[in-house]
Amino acid sequence: MPDLSSPTGPPGSDADRTARVALTRLAEPGNRAVWSLVQEHGAPATLDLLISGDVRDSSLRASVLAKMAGFDPFRSAEATLQRAQRLGARIVVPADDEWPTRVDTLAALELDTEGRINWDIRPPLCLWVRGGWPVGETLDRSVAVVGARAATNYGIHVTTELAFGLTENGWTVVSGGAFGIDAAAHRAALSAGGRTVAVLACGVDRPYPTGNSSMFERIADTGLLISEWPPGAEPLRHRFLIRNRVIAAATVGTVVTEAAARSGAMQTMSRVLALRRVAMVMPGAVTSAMSVGCHEILRSNPEATLVTGLPHVLEAVGRVGEYFADRPRGPERPRDALDEESALVMEALPTRGTVSPEELAARSGLPLRTVLRRLSLLELAGLVERREGGVALPARPRAAE
Amino acid sequence: MPDLSSPTGPPGSDADRTARVALTRLAEPGNRAVWSLVQEHGAPATLDLLISGDVRDSSLRASVLAKMAGFDPFRSAEATLQRAQRLGARIVVPADDEWPTRVDTLAALELDTEGRINWDIRPPLCLWVRGGWPVGETLDRSVAVVGARAATNYGIHVTTELAFGLTENGWTVVSGGAFGIDAAAHRAALSAGGRTVAVLACGVDRPYPTGNSSMFERIADTGLLISEWPPGAEPLRHRFLIRNRVIAAATVGTVVTEAAARSGAMQTMSRVLALRRVAMVMPGAVTSAMSVGCHEILRSNPEATLVTGLPHVLEAVGRVGEYFADRPRGPERPRDALDEESALVMEALPTRGTVSPEELAARSGLPLRTVLRRLSLLELAGLVERREGGVALPARPRAAE
Repeated sequence: MPDLSSPTGPPGSDADRTARVALTRLAEPGNRAVWSLVQEHGAPATLDLLISGDVRDSSLRASVLAKMAGFDPFRSAEATLQRAQRLGARIVVPADDEWPTRVDTLAALELDTEGRINWDIRPPLCLWVRGGWPVGETLDRSVAVVGARAATNYGIHVTTELAFGLTENGWTVVSGGAFGIDAAAHRAALSAGGRTVAVLACGVDRPYPTGNSSMFERIADTGLLISEWPPGAEPLRHRFLIRNRVIAAATVGTVVTEAAARSGAMQTMSRVLALRRVAMVMPGAVTSAMSVGCHEILRSNPEATLVTGLPHVLEAVGRVGEYFADRPRGPERPRDALDEESALVMEALPTRGTVSPEELAARSGLPLRTVLRRLSLLELAGLVERREGGVALPARPRAAE
Repeated sequence: MPDLSSPTGPPGSDADRTARVALTRLAEPGNRAVWSLVQEHGAPATLDLLISGDVRDSSLRASVLAKMAGFDPFRSAEATLQRAQRLGARIVVPADDEWPTRVDTLAALELDTEGRINWDIRPPLCLWVRGGWPVGETLDRSVAVVGARAATNYGIHVTTELAFGLTENGWTVVSGGAFGIDAAAHRAALSAGGRTVAVLACGVDRPYPTGNSSMFERIADTGLLISEWPPGAEPLRHRFLIRNRVIAAATVGTVVTEAAARSGAMQTMSRVLALRRVAMVMPGAVTSAMSVGCHEILRSNPEATLVTGLPHVLEAVGRVGEYFADRPRGPERPRDALDEESALVMEALPTRGTVSPEELAARSGLPLRTVLRRLSLLELAGLVERREGGVALPARPRAAE
């Protein structure tokens, strides 16, 4: 066996960067055992341990050995780094100022998914980035807007409105770059002239799906393309599930605007909830298959918040007191501020014609004396008029009830 | 002052019935003070107390005196009872076998409506009924389906589906007889050949709105028209709010299918929640004004349940274990039952073409030995095939992901 031991160096050094890239080649991002070793020994030493087979976890040991057949991870990582530089992509590691520290909360995550696939999820070891903005600052005030690929016109409409409004309010819109809801979210943010971030499950040099290529180029120019996988990496199916944890962790909250039953968006939302981020769901017609997943999230997760638009989302993700969504109101009516007795009198007034105070007392169940006292005040407020020996609602047109 | 003292008798006697009808003329149904007096002294004695002015509650005393001007409540009640008999309406009192005892839980209700109008709500003193069925038995398994008068096509559609299905499952559909959602619920129950109950805010002889007259006649023929107000009573605006408490209390649960902001349906739902009945809400498009109230109920009341159709409603109102709603599912896939390692292998298989076990190990992050073991089992299960020196997904067409 050739000598594969690799250079060493502190976090943020070239050796640290190269080792993290190499580790991503030896185990999928989020691998619990690898992440724990890096926490304990640093990335270069962990790479050496894996290469030498000196790890307790027999499953990890066997997996790494299988991947190492005829392949030098450290040299390969160096080559990838050089190639990435030519492509305009950079590597960001936890020691960098621009590291989005929010993703490190994945370290605390324990998932119990009722016997379903329980991916080992831990924070990313590194992120590949295309785009000029610092990652951490860009994600500091960010909201993920995700959902179905087979979105309906309704889903596209509400997603566009929401993402545009978030951008106008200075929030970064994060999504996964897919067709449908994801693309609508990115495009609305682009058209509002803001930063949007696509978190990919493949190399940032070949964003998937290729049908969205021109959109990805615009995102790289004005926002960020981010991936845990090195340039050239394929969008393998399981990588979307691994990627989803980063969308959930890197943002203040996630909104699902449309989702079919058992969709990827539901899996993302389970991460959002486990991380205690703000989980938001837009409802839709119960007759729409693309809202079934949304309604199921709301039914099964009391912590998930139903939102109907931008005000609700801002209220949920803003700092305390930063935003308040108005409660939906019917037409504004002065009588809404009335005390109980006055309201009873108003309710007892006929829509047309006049009525005597005695009749008002009978209808409202209030003493005549009370009715007379209230009528004086209501008349001063312009809410009733005295006409033809009785009282009546004012003659001017009123809003329909 | 003439002698107005009235005959006396035990609960259920003619004197009891007549006194309850008379009390409804002197104070609106649900009046807390009157109901408490009836509980303590019985209806005939309470009527005497009110007529003689011998009550502590000064507001009630003044109100009753105002209403008594030139009017003998007991004689008037006797005349109403005789007239009702000619109209085919009967009076039902708590002593009767057919009394719907569930409404008596209103006695325990304490409302805190944040300073808004806080109606004195207590159980009905009596109910006027048209229709052949015993009231209590008819309401025993009942669900209220209520909502906006200005319903949309969507609201009418989902209400019709729900009410039809409830009726087919042996449930009585209760509503308020209004245009829009209420009428759709009644009509669907009628067309399913079941019993439906309209709880009115006016006399059962002149159900409101008159535009629904033929529907009310069909309900009287095959179901029940119910009201707390005597024949001839007008549908005054505030009576709808008083009536709503009976809809909430008499049923196992209430579904709001469409509601505008600050609608009557929202007020009904506040009673449903206060009574700890099952509060159910259908969501809709966030772009629909007629779903704003529905979404607001769900946002402000964690106890309210989002329902998307009959299965959810049956699950919520049925006896424990009587119904189970299926969770929404995507296309059925055998792989859903797989253990975690097998699922990882399946996820790592390419959609087309073959792959070597070594490559599968690399992609899945699993040891080669594990991959080989899992592949044997997956081949036996027909989930993978060996082809051209590698493994592949079976050649037969598969459902789209």
